[in-house]
Amino acid sequence: MARDEGAVDDGCVPVSVTAPEGFVAGGIACGIKASGAADLALVATDDGRPVPAAGVFTRNLAAAAPVTVSRAHLEATGGNAAAVIVSSGNANAATGDRGVADAESMCALVGEGLGVRAADVLVCQTGLIGIPLPMGPIVAGIPRLVSARAGGSAAGERAATAIMTTDVVRKEVVVEGRGLTVGAMAKGAAMLAPNMATMLAVLTTDAACDPRALRAALRVAVDGTFNRMTIDGCTSTNDTVVVLAGGRAGPPEDPDALTDALTEACGALATAMAGDAEGGSRVAHVVVTGAVSDDEAHRAARKVADSNLVKCSLNGEDPYWGRVVSELGSAEVAFEMGRVQIAYGDTVVCRRGVAAAHDETAVRAHMAEPLVELSCDLGLGTGRAAVMTVDLGHGYIDENRTTS
Amino acid sequence: MARDEGAVDDGCVPVSVTAPEGFVAGGIACGIKASGAADLALVATDDGRPVPAAGVFTRNLAAAAPVTVSRAHLEATGGNAAAVIVSSGNANAATGDRGVADAESMCALVGEGLGVRAADVLVCQTGLIGIPLPMGPIVAGIPRLVSARAGGSAAGERAATAIMTTDVVRKEVVVEGRGLTVGAMAKGAAMLAPNMATMLAVLTTDAACDPRALRAALRVAVDGTFNRMTIDGCTSTNDTVVVLAGGRAGPPEDPDALTDALTEACGALATAMAGDAEGGSRVAHVVVTGAVSDDEAHRAARKVADSNLVKCSLNGEDPYWGRVVSELGSAEVAFEMGRVQIAYGDTVVCRRGVAAAHDETAVRAHMAEPLVELSCDLGLGTGRAAVMTVDLGHGYIDENRTTS
Repeated sequence: MARDEGAVDDGCVPVSVTAPEGFVAGGIACGIKASGAADLALVATDDGRPVPAAGVFTRNLAAAAPVTVSRAHLEATGGNAAAVIVSSGNANAATGDRGVADAESMCALVGEGLGVRAADVLVCQTGLIGIPLPMGPIVAGIPRLVSARAGGSAAGERAATAIMTTDVVRKEVVVEGRGLTVGAMAKGAAMLAPNMATMLAVLTTDAACDPRALRAALRVAVDGTFNRMTIDGCTSTNDTVVVLAGGRAGPPEDPDALTDALTEACGALATAMAGDAEGGSRVAHVVVTGAVSDDEAHRAARKVADSNLVKCSLNGEDPYWGRVVSELGSAEVAFEMGRVQIAYGDTVVCRRGVAAAHDETAVRAHMAEPLVELSCDLGLGTGRAAVMTVDLGHGYIDENRTTS
Repeated sequence: MARDEGAVDDGCVPVSVTAPEGFVAGGIACGIKASGAADLALVATDDGRPVPAAGVFTRNLAAAAPVTVSRAHLEATGGNAAAVIVSSGNANAATGDRGVADAESMCALVGEGLGVRAADVLVCQTGLIGIPLPMGPIVAGIPRLVSARAGGSAAGERAATAIMTTDVVRKEVVVEGRGLTVGAMAKGAAMLAPNMATMLAVLTTDAACDPRALRAALRVAVDGTFNRMTIDGCTSTNDTVVVLAGGRAGPPEDPDALTDALTEACGALATAMAGDAEGGSRVAHVVVTGAVSDDEAHRAARKVADSNLVKCSLNGEDPYWGRVVSELGSAEVAFEMGRVQIAYGDTVVCRRGVAAAHDETAVRAHMAEPLVELSCDLGLGTGRAAVMTVDLGHGYIDENRTTS
């Protein structure tokens, strides 16, 4: 059962990365952001000892320095970490060797404070690309942040706040049950794309799990959630999802319990991200069935979900299914026009590839809702996939036309 | 030498499909468009006899009825046609068997008027998808249009006007020299994409050329022009480029003359389309050099050119090269961050993968121009490609959020 940050916090289980026993957190404003907003966050084991850890990172070949460093640290430790340091306001991407050295320094400073090696610390960063990281405030801030780390939901909330950039809503979730707890925080409101996007997520769990199994569980969770959504088709330089497994609750009751809990947590965070996408006003689930394979269904759903024309129609609440057919036909998957069926909500608008008489009022009402269900049946096989997307309106452009 | 419709027409060579000797044209309002604007155009040989013809069509598997019919006709005749009938206001796409029968009827009616078989007539259509074609006005209009066909620039202009949809500017071009003339008209202001897009172009030439060579020449011309531009990454159901070679000027002086002239004509039309893109205010040439192959350069240039974030930056006149690097890194081509160089106009803003000190005033001035040159050198090989794109602003959204 997932509880998001909108749920009532009864004081027993904080809705944050500190929910699972064995974790502390913190967040401060160190001075990266000119606005003075919080910009430096820490999640760590409460005793400072490394525990099994895993990460999934952007596949962008222009990967940022923190991605390079975190990947190397997980490799060096065989999948263990004691802490994750996260900064916002500067992506430390396209910053060359200096950027890598800066990210390493951040890990070393955290390690010093916790009494572990730099390699036992992971680092995530988000913000503008191509600007050298301002190390002065970070070097001054980290010892202060390490000292201020604490358990409880207030500390978790401070961490979740410090990783926000263009996010309007703070994103935290906790999933409990089947003998384990997962806590998580994330930032992400832009560039969510084929392979995640400027989105960072830090998860914690009290389940005991070896690094290899943890990595497999995280991969499944990410593939089914963050990798099934798109905002604008762009893939970020900094995407990172990391999980630390403290082990205080012992091994999960059944083999799938941890994978399921991580998937539920990631799914809740992904939904929160889509709802909070830069400039977006409406979320759509694009569901493709009847493809010759799940992979082709996914490709077709992504083609529709990434289409600027379809996204503009969502913004205008206009059920123009002709654009959907056009995208399906150019998705480079098996396609027969005469077999296609398209529905908005429960109303079929296209049957056997041509217009179907339908209740236009019902469709218009559905298009005006905050969550639109767009179902496409290719009529060829049993392949099925869903991709979450958002509309394209003035808001997205206003958010992205300038960086200043 | 190309002359576009803005050039002074001295009365000797009309800037239209009627420029090459042997062609007539016409355009009328038959009543497809509720606005009463012209919506039916004809281009035909002046003696009504079939001549060598070739076409390049959308690769969308949801191809519209006119695409299906024109492909079949070229196949049946071995690459010959006497006329092209074009209608605007209804795409006759996603209209099933009835749509194909309607497109066939249009060809048959034109053939009747000219005294040729239906298979000697090609058909192009553009407009909304998924709405049955209103055949009443078309059946009444075609005989009138056939009777009204004429030579000269006024008749060509009427045809070019009748194929416009959201176009603001009429698109006609003539290319003369090396013993031949090419005349052309086009419509297209939306959905120009990987494999053309809702764009129609009809070219005529007085060169003598067998169907096979004509087809090869047209393919080269389209690949280097229409297939090197993008508006929003969407591929239309109706894209068609057709050429009729009347032969009155005899065989071309040299083997490449016709290919070059077709390429020049298509290039001029593509530039006119980008400048007239729905809601666009700025055109950019994205040039990628230093890729390991021309193919990889093309893929990288297209990734940048299709990026909503890069296109928003163009709209905002914001030289945020970080987004360009991010797109290059996720283009699925060979990429080494430390070798990348990026320039806006003549000003290098990123060198060896990191920020380069530069004249910010010069960059801002360049970004404010109507044509932006964005150059990316991957520093790995000799592969090179260019893709033309447009900015993404409120105009695109206002044009596309509703169809009404």
